[in-house]
Amino acid sequence: MSDLLVLHGPNLNLLGSREPEIYGATTLADINAKLTDMAHSAHLSIDTLQSNAEYVLLDRIHAARLDGTRMILINPGAFTHQSVALRDALTGVAIPFLEIHLSNVHAREPFRHHSYLSDVAKGVICGLGVHSYYLAMQYAITTLKA
Amino acid sequence: MSDLLVLHGPNLNLLGSREPEIYGATTLADINAKLTDMAHSAHLSIDTLQSNAEYVLLDRIHAARLDGTRMILINPGAFTHQSVALRDALTGVAIPFLEIHLSNVHAREPFRHHSYLSDVAKGVICGLGVHSYYLAMQYAITTLKA
Amino acid sequence: MSDLLVLHGPNLNLLGSREPEIYGATTLADINAKLTDMAHSAHLSIDTLQSNAEYVLLDRIHAARLDGTRMILINPGAFTHQSVALRDALTGVAIPFLEIHLSNVHAREPFRHHSYLSDVAKGVICGLGVHSYYLAMQYAITTLKA
Amino acid sequence: MSDLLVLHGPNLNLLGSREPEIYGATTLADINAKLTDMAHSAHLSIDTLQSNAEYVLLDRIHAARLDGTRMILINPGAFTHQSVALRDALTGVAIPFLEIHLSNVHAREPFRHHSYLSDVAKGVICGLGVHSYYLAMQYAITTLKA
Amino acid sequence: MSDLLVLHGPNLNLLGSREPEIYGATTLADINAKLTDMAHSAHLSIDTLQSNAEYVLLDRIHAARLDGTRMILINPGAFTHQSVALRDALTGVAIPFLEIHLSNVHAREPFRHHSYLSDVAKGVICGLGVHSYYLAMQYAITTLKA
Amino acid sequence: MSDLLVLHGPNLNLLGSREPEIYGATTLADINAKLTDMAHSAHLSIDTLQSNAEYVLLDRIHAARLDGTRMILINPGAFTHQSVALRDALTGVAIPFLEIHLSNVHAREPFRHHSYLSDVAKGVICGLGVHSYYLAMQYAITTLKA
Amino acid sequence: MSDLLVLHGPNLNLLGSREPEIYGATTLADINAKLTDMAHSAHLSIDTLQSNAEYVLLDRIHAARLDGTRMILINPGAFTHQSVALRDALTGVAIPFLEIHLSNVHAREPFRHHSYLSDVAKGVICGLGVHSYYLAMQYAITTLKA
Amino acid sequence: MSDLLVLHGPNLNLLGSREPEIYGATTLADINAKLTDMAHSAHLSIDTLQSNAEYVLLDRIHAARLDGTRMILINPGAFTHQSVALRDALTGVAIPFLEIHLSNVHAREPFRHHSYLSDVAKGVICGLGVHSYYLAMQYAITTLKA
Amino acid sequence: MSDLLVLHGPNLNLLGSREPEIYGATTLADINAKLTDMAHSAHLSIDTLQSNAEYVLLDRIHAARLDGTRMILINPGAFTHQSVALRDALTGVAIPFLEIHLSNVHAREPFRHHSYLSDVAKGVICGLGVHSYYLAMQYAITTLKA
Amino acid sequence: MSDLLVLHGPNLNLLGSREPEIYGATTLADINAKLTDMAHSAHLSIDTLQSNAEYVLLDRIHAARLDGTRMILINPGAFTHQSVALRDALTGVAIPFLEIHLSNVHAREPFRHHSYLSDVAKGVICGLGVHSYYLAMQYAITTLKA
Amino acid sequence: MSDLLVLHGPNLNLLGSREPEIYGATTLADINAKLTDMAHSAHLSIDTLQSNAEYVLLDRIHAARLDGTRMILINPGAFTHQSVALRDALTGVAIPFLEIHLSNVHAREPFRHHSYLSDVAKGVICGLGVHSYYLAMQYAITTLKA
Amino acid sequence: MSDLLVLHGPNLNLLGSREPEIYGATTLADINAKLTDMAHSAHLSIDTLQSNAEYVLLDRIHAARLDGTRMILINPGAFTHQSVALRDALTGVAIPFLEIHLSNVHAREPFRHHSYLSDVAKGVICGLGVHSYYLAMQYAITTLKA
Repeated sequence: MSDLLVLHGPNLNLLGSREPEIYGATTLADINAKLTDMAHSAHLSIDTLQSNAEYVLLDRIHAARLDGTRMILINPGAFTHQSVALRDALTGVAIPFLEIHLSNVHAREPFRHHSYLSDVAKGVICGLGVHSYYLAMQYAITTLKA
Repeated sequence: MSDLLVLHGPNLNLLGSREPEIYGATTLADINAKLTDMAHSAHLSIDTLQSNAEYVLLDRIHAARLDGTRMILINPGAFTHQSVALRDALTGVAIPFLEIHLSNVHAREPFRHHSYLSDVAKGVICGLGVHSYYLAMQYAITTLKA
Repeated sequence: MSDLLVLHGPNLNLLGSREPEIYGATTLADINAKLTDMAHSAHLSIDTLQSNAEYVLLDRIHAARLDGTRMILINPGAFTHQSVALRDALTGVAIPFLEIHLSNVHAREPFRHHSYLSDVAKGVICGLGVHSYYLAMQYAITTLKA
Repeated sequence: MSDLLVLHGPNLNLLGSREPEIYGATTLADINAKLTDMAHSAHLSIDTLQSNAEYVLLDRIHAARLDGTRMILINPGAFTHQSVALRDALTGVAIPFLEIHLSNVHAREPFRHHSYLSDVAKGVICGLGVHSYYLAMQYAITTLKA
Repeated sequence: MSDLLVLHGPNLNLLGSREPEIYGATTLADINAKLTDMAHSAHLSIDTLQSNAEYVLLDRIHAARLDGTRMILINPGAFTHQSVALRDALTGVAIPFLEIHLSNVHAREPFRHHSYLSDVAKGVICGLGVHSYYLAMQYAITTLKA
Repeated sequence: MSDLLVLHGPNLNLLGSREPEIYGATTLADINAKLTDMAHSAHLSIDTLQSNAEYVLLDRIHAARLDGTRMILINPGAFTHQSVALRDALTGVAIPFLEIHLSNVHAREPFRHHSYLSDVAKGVICGLGVHSYYLAMQYAITTLKA
Repeated sequence: MSDLLVLHGPNLNLLGSREPEIYGATTLADINAKLTDMAHSAHLSIDTLQSNAEYVLLDRIHAARLDGTRMILINPGAFTHQSVALRDALTGVAIPFLEIHLSNVHAREPFRHHSYLSDVAKGVICGLGVHSYYLAMQYAITTLKA
Repeated sequence: MSDLLVLHGPNLNLLGSREPEIYGATTLADINAKLTDMAHSAHLSIDTLQSNAEYVLLDRIHAARLDGTRMILINPGAFTHQSVALRDALTGVAIPFLEIHLSNVHAREPFRHHSYLSDVAKGVICGLGVHSYYLAMQYAITTLKA
Repeated sequence: MSDLLVLHGPNLNLLGSREPEIYGATTLADINAKLTDMAHSAHLSIDTLQSNAEYVLLDRIHAARLDGTRMILINPGAFTHQSVALRDALTGVAIPFLEIHLSNVHAREPFRHHSYLSDVAKGVICGLGVHSYYLAMQYAITTLKA
Repeated sequence: MSDLLVLHGPNLNLLGSREPEIYGATTLADINAKLTDMAHSAHLSIDTLQSNAEYVLLDRIHAARLDGTRMILINPGAFTHQSVALRDALTGVAIPFLEIHLSNVHAREPFRHHSYLSDVAKGVICGLGVHSYYLAMQYAITTLKA
Repeated sequence: MSDLLVLHGPNLNLLGSREPEIYGATTLADINAKLTDMAHSAHLSIDTLQSNAEYVLLDRIHAARLDGTRMILINPGAFTHQSVALRDALTGVAIPFLEIHLSNVHAREPFRHHSYLSDVAKGVICGLGVHSYYLAMQYAITTLKA
Repeated sequence: MSDLLVLHGPNLNLLGSREPEIYGATTLADINAKLTDMAHSAHLSIDTLQSNAEYVLLDRIHAARLDGTRMILINPGAFTHQSVALRDALTGVAIPFLEIHLSNVHAREPFRHHSYLSDVAKGVICGLGVHSYYLAMQYAITTLKA
């Protein structure tokens, strides 16, 4: 039971080691720790999950419908471009969510320019490295405390 | 070992709660119960499975090749539009199957107009809510009893 | 004055003789007889019409607006892919209709994959031979008797 | 001479009155005041400009090359989709910039899905209303103070 | 810990039974045995894995980054055309890999003509049945022993 | 034998009853009466025809070549988007014509954005309800009386 | 009952008057007379029909299935580009047919470059004016007398 | 402060001299005079403006929101095809407007077939030379006096 | 010096042996002999040439400009779809030509549906086997003797 | 009043400082000086203008219609790809013009491959740095002195 | 008379000097020598040919039909993307062939992603430098000796 | 051995006679003479070649790699649009080249708008008749003498 759910898609467990010139050197644990600090400072509970398996993310989103989650922050990774199921899960549970990307997807391969999530997201933040996450968290805090 | 296999794709476990204005209020358990009744009344055995994981569906289809399954009814959900693997599994086991959709996919987002399954299905029924399932079952019974 | 109107588009009068490997050997008269039996068994009145002329179908649909028709079952044949006028007539009279195809249009030429009717239909049934008609009739009966 | 330059494109002067269901009720003056406060609190100088004229924006960007501007925050409005000249000006002066949108452009008309700026921007923030601006400013402050 | 990693994607466990007119009668166990013999003859260690689950393949590739794998041979099956995550995993670990197909994908359905892997692969071999694997192994041996 | 020919395409006989929120409540008889009044006031003869049959419109256009018709006003309805034959008939008789639409076709489904007639018409008027007809008539009168 | 059926599509009744710079000055009656002479000289019976109505052509083709017609020569006019029903009728009766055009359709508007008939025709002759018909007849005679 | 605002886009100041075979010999002053006469005869106030600068048109439209303008007649000239900002200004002030073209844009270069304004306009009149303006004015008078 | 030039493009030297189910068993020598007979019977001189080399065909066409050639019959084979140079040569010498295909190109691979020659040819005959040549010759004789 | 008009579009005032690896180090003043020398040596008068504002360029082109300008050399910069108005102005005044680009636009982003001016220009010179201007001037001199 | 024919397309004579970072430093003579050794070791005869002329390759392929060639290895170079004639020659002689590329064509310009040969080849090997040739030879030997 | 190589593609031998309204009346010999004069005046050696055969051009380009050629001027004619091999030859020898067209290719058929050479050329000059050549030569002289 948490106010905020943070989801990380496939390959993001590699963060800090994989293609650091694109993704930076911070690890996912660093990011989760920072996000948790931010949430707790605002007296909001938070849960985080990374998975390479689409179904694990779907199951967690389904669970969020019943556990009081008020907003989802999701970096869908490669699932951005391939998973209609993720879109359906997020619209199915009807919890507002932000789409987050570390890199500027618009500056990469053409197939990364299309997202199955953006048009049903509350908003999108991309290209700002780990700050994409932190700014999204700040928005979530501002909104949920309003 | 069953004559009929009914498969439900990702997010269909939410049925009854998710976007009821599109999908209706009946739950998946209701549907499975009704389908089982129909099959049993025709003296046909039946197995049902829902999964959010593509691989679980693939494994079950593979198993159907050896357990005497004579026809598959599948509502592939979002996998309709994203899973070439599902197509390959279904053509690989060479069991005739019907593609089923609760909603009228042609009236929704453009990316839902393409299916990786339709051209290798026996037929397609969409837009008739839970009746899409029941009519498919009726077809299966008629065919298998012929 | 009938509860149900069944329409058959161009070339369907050839049924039973034309390309039987695609369309089967049943004639249109057989189908109409079976559909009429089904309707009458449910105490519903029914009218059927086949025409190779688009305007005849349009005129009949217009008439349906005033004669109490509650649902239309239509196999538009080749008009599926070429007639915006048919779409306009069906939406103009605002009677719910089912789109029916004997063959699996998704497995045929690409130009048969687009329908001017599907997104405004209640639902679509294709690929199940004459059973496409019978299942549609069963849906109509279930709905109208509800 | 300022550390930060904030640019607002065409029609943004209408903010607060134009289509409030999309853009909210805050005026541009409100936004500029808030952004200025944020910058000053971080001991950074700031300049803001709105114009309906592409050339005024181009001239101001050119001037930024010589006046010490370290980062640009730009909500290009409709110029996002029509102005190659704006892209050329921003890449020409080689000052890092963030692209900002109040609304979620991905959920609007298809022609708003393409931006001439995104692939050369540092990052993009959209859909979060006035918070799109404030989060961008926070990123700018964090980066410039690092 | 192995020099060589051989990965087989979804449905390839059916090999030998599924559509033999396209894929031949050899089983996956046969192929793995032959490949292992070839590697051992060259004094190279080898690991093989087949999975219908994308995440299992992703996890195995991630592990390869740390276990000394020097080259990957992958027949991605249907994931070729649907998995951006697989591409990201392979580029993320930065181990050179060969893309392998039993059938000639260029002679099959148009959607099989596009691969998310080919442009980041070292090379591609397709259409030569089980020899596609063996030639790839021979290339790997030649390269790793050079 | 008439100076002016007014043609109405398929489904326009429904005018006044069909989708009044799009097409308004005036009937075709009302429109024809008004147009006839306008023509007669300018001492011009006029003939009007509505048909759901393409061939009836083609035959009438052919006849116009010999009966002294000087200008054609045509609301082609759905034939706008489907009938090359109508285009050929109109260019074949070489009588200048205006294309008229009650609704704003540009604000409707994409397939209504293309017309087989517009580029060979004298001009096009759309979106102004029954005034689309009346303005076209006024243009015709002005031109023919000049 | 005739060996040969010659069909002329919409607007071809205008031949000789309509756009003579494209279609020439010979009338349809002239063409039919010449074709009839050619057929009779070869001791073949012949029937000719022009119609602006698609359904009349469909009905005539259907009749040909039963009256011994051995080959059809058809100039489909504008129906070339708009009538799937014509294609279905011709393939439905399974009588070989030649597609004929007076003008060179490849040198005209782009929408005339696509034919719904060509890929199911025996062959196509275009651009040779009335000789397109006569050469087709000569081919028919040669084939039928062989 | 005027009931009606007439806007002319870029290059329309050349009217009467530029490409008279397309645009005719009447000057913009002639048109404005005629339109003013028509408005005044109907006791409606009117303002007219031509500009080659997009921002001048935007500013004038913005001003219309506050000065009581009830309808806008706009010939956007080349901005039809290039200015999203003009679209945004017109929808932003929420004043109904008519789109006017002297020439038949559908008969010219393909890039002139798309308008950024048509789908949000009340209606469109094109191809009728200066009468395109006068008919639009007549519609405005009829509507505003109703 | 000849009235008629017959050109055959690449691979047509294989005629009679290559894919006889598509192209028939007649050899190119047979065809040339028959065409020569036809021409001579009409007291017309004729030259024939087959080449697999584009430049040989170009050179021969260039020569035709000066040697009195009055009409060219060309089966361009695969050059139909790849040679802009052939188009330029034929339009450059300004001799009317007929495009000939043995097979029905519309019934083959999509890339064979486009011809660089058709829109500048006098006419096109395809699908009639060797008769495509003979009918073209007959047309040439008729035209040149007229 | 000048024989030659040289126009430079948006951002070209940055020349010499902006992206010198693409555009070189020469300033616009240098180029104008050189062009003026060349013109004067040929006893031709010349005027030059750079503007970031589209309307300023349009106004200057309009003025050229009346001041005796005989040829225009224009480097439209980013307006190449976005300004239909510029095309209309240039065709409207009917003065021959050359399109000039410093860089090779064909080797840059795809959206730079399309020009709204090229097909109505006399000719195009691109990729030769400042020599693109000088060669254009030389052509102008040659032509005007002829 | 040889069992194996190895063909190299245009520009491959430059091998060893042209763009070595893409194609490596081995010369064509080196490759041919190695391939010949491999064939002779397997007691197979072999012929090799490089040509910049398409017709030379076509002629050689035609000759292969009669000289006992059992398999063709071809690196078509640029002809891959431009020569329908090469495709026709290879399918015409009905000898199985392998398509070979030194570089990974999928990682180069988009126009290199399409091949006129792949779908009619036995298989394709690309991206493995000279090993692409050697592996193809090994496959040929294995197949022919089987 | 020459500093400059001038290449003319297919059909350019017709210059002076072929379509003079597009290409002018100057012959290729005239052009070569003028270019030779220009080169010699600058003390640069020059070689010229026209061929209708692609391979002859390829061979000459290959030779240029070894004979000291410092720059190539090429009017590729129709090969512009069809020859990937020419592109590969020019990039293979790595000699800078200019692409030249007599006519304005942008004002001709759409298939002439794409060039396989432009993005790898130094620059492109088109539309200026024979001056396209002379300006290119002047650029070459300026560059080589610098």
